[in-house]
Amino acid sequence: METITVQTSTNQYDVSIGKKLRFETANFIKKDYSSIFIITDSNVESLYLQDVLSSLKPNYTVNYTIVPAGESSKSIRVYFDIMTQAIQYGLDRHGLIIALGGGMVGDLSGFVSSTFMRGIDYIQIPTTILAHDSSVGGKVAINHPEGKNLIGSFHPPQAVIYDVETLHTIPLTEIRSGYAEIAKHSLIHTEPFWDQIKVVNLKTLLSDEDLMVHLLKGIEVKAAIVEKDERESNIRQHLNFGHTLGHALEAELGYGEITHGEGVGIGMLFAMRVSEFYYDIKLPYTELFTWLKKNDFPLDLPQLQIGKLINRMKKDKKARNKTVQMVLLKSVGQPAIELVDDNNLAMLLEKFLRELVEK
Amino acid sequence: METITVQTSTNQYDVSIGKKLRFETANFIKKDYSSIFIITDSNVESLYLQDVLSSLKPNYTVNYTIVPAGESSKSIRVYFDIMTQAIQYGLDRHGLIIALGGGMVGDLSGFVSSTFMRGIDYIQIPTTILAHDSSVGGKVAINHPEGKNLIGSFHPPQAVIYDVETLHTIPLTEIRSGYAEIAKHSLIHTEPFWDQIKVVNLKTLLSDEDLMVHLLKGIEVKAAIVEKDERESNIRQHLNFGHTLGHALEAELGYGEITHGEGVGIGMLFAMRVSEFYYDIKLPYTELFTWLKKNDFPLDLPQLQIGKLINRMKKDKKARNKTVQMVLLKSVGQPAIELVDDNNLAMLLEKFLRELVEK
Repeated sequence: METITVQTSTNQYDVSIGKKLRFETANFIKKDYSSIFIITDSNVESLYLQDVLSSLKPNYTVNYTIVPAGESSKSIRVYFDIMTQAIQYGLDRHGLIIALGGGMVGDLSGFVSSTFMRGIDYIQIPTTILAHDSSVGGKVAINHPEGKNLIGSFHPPQAVIYDVETLHTIPLTEIRSGYAEIAKHSLIHTEPFWDQIKVVNLKTLLSDEDLMVHLLKGIEVKAAIVEKDERESNIRQHLNFGHTLGHALEAELGYGEITHGEGVGIGMLFAMRVSEFYYDIKLPYTELFTWLKKNDFPLDLPQLQIGKLINRMKKDKKARNKTVQMVLLKSVGQPAIELVDDNNLAMLLEKFLRELVEK
Repeated sequence: METITVQTSTNQYDVSIGKKLRFETANFIKKDYSSIFIITDSNVESLYLQDVLSSLKPNYTVNYTIVPAGESSKSIRVYFDIMTQAIQYGLDRHGLIIALGGGMVGDLSGFVSSTFMRGIDYIQIPTTILAHDSSVGGKVAINHPEGKNLIGSFHPPQAVIYDVETLHTIPLTEIRSGYAEIAKHSLIHTEPFWDQIKVVNLKTLLSDEDLMVHLLKGIEVKAAIVEKDERESNIRQHLNFGHTLGHALEAELGYGEITHGEGVGIGMLFAMRVSEFYYDIKLPYTELFTWLKKNDFPLDLPQLQIGKLINRMKKDKKARNKTVQMVLLKSVGQPAIELVDDNNLAMLLEKFLRELVEK
């Protein structure tokens, strides 16, 4: 088992990565909680809920709720239903919530935890690669029909328990989605980390060892950044590399049409092109493109309206006074935040989408 | 104008108390916000919204929303509607929310602020005496059908602007409600402060000077406590003196049947009786009773079921493993937290309610 300690403004917590950790959940609980409430989804329940329960039941009062799998559960309705159940089960301010599942479950459960009786402790047990990103850093949220994660807060977990075995049950499309964030972490970090990722073939079975190395490194990059800027007033924004267009594509194509990571993959390509234009430099666009292509990222986008995409980008939480803000790269490992004016954005986006179609 | 600076774990803010401050709102805004969104209610709007707008409009983009007056606006539905409006008005992470109104508006707006795009700044402009309590300390929340303030968080304001002139437009029942919290602050603080409050006759017109003195002192007591224990892990619980039975009465009689402060008034009487029993002491029960009576607090309660009230007390956020926790007084100015077992609680509550009827 490997452990990374993340320091936050109010506490510190361990991210533990290893095999079969789900069977040892109880060992990661450090306080005497009045009861435990597990939140999981309809996919994860049948795979891992019993394993976690078997670890906890000897020592705790445990209740659970199962939400429908999929992004649509990050809604105000499901959020409120969970609150009602938690109250009815007698969960109190000295209770613990456990988020067992991918990013959706983590975000939703984290937001419930941050607002249940003004905030209680929670632990993340991520079951996807993508969740290596969302489970660290304390960002929790639900969606609003007007945009993703518009309702949320900052609420760091008490622990993250990462059982790599659970990652073998996720479909290729989810592996891709998770590795896009690992690729992002590598590109904003260093050349050598990117060199490690760009040779990964996601269509072959990844070993537990490789997974652990990549996740560890990804989490280290993220943890180092959020420790310096928990509230995203400056460098934490670097983690949004690829996300400005990524989020807009997700929303414009309709959630579920492409995964978060697939959107980020294309978004990173675009951010590279914008960077090359702004800084008059050359970035490893072709390397990234080739890696995405090799791993079957969907790069053949349907016809999209530039104006609509730009409007989506402006609705992003990062927008400032309605001008789009993007994370660019001065080189691999050197991210920077820039405001991109509408004219340049439209010109570059049109060129980029044309280029993507022609390749 | 008088100013109290409150230190929190993350920032500090000034509570300013004076006359006509609402016309100077703009002077209390310290940052360059992208826009301002005012939340007020249907009562306050017609009285003071224009005054505040006139101060802000020359320098800011200002939008506002008006929620129905009354506790029922602290609902998930109104909360979500406000979120939608804020997004549609283009409020972003660099915007400011202003809560213009009493405790309901402050709690609701504060919770919106704490969760809008993971938290943005807000300023409180309280317009009731009761709000001297809720506007300081950063507790924000909405209600759940199962109980008050069950959904919420800690989110300190950037400033509290208290214009005492606005306090002359509130009805006597609201003045009573506010002074019950001032009385509470005095009883957990010192004998001399209580001596000052116990002679106040709420049925005569209170001068701006008296109001300022009492509010200042009340806020000082509260601020000193929340500075030491923002998250209510220990001494902040002292502020719940009178609230265990108070909240239960509010809920059992139906919200709106008695005001918050009226419930707290009776709750403090009960907490005194419990204290006398537990510590074998004598407290100024009769002084408090006389003061409540003189000021027309409703002390003739309808027939109530002890069991139901105790169940309500157990649902309180402060309950621990389903045993009721109460704030007692060892003497005036010496609060302490105690677990009160069900049998004693039932016995004392029955005796207390009988005593109240007989007086």
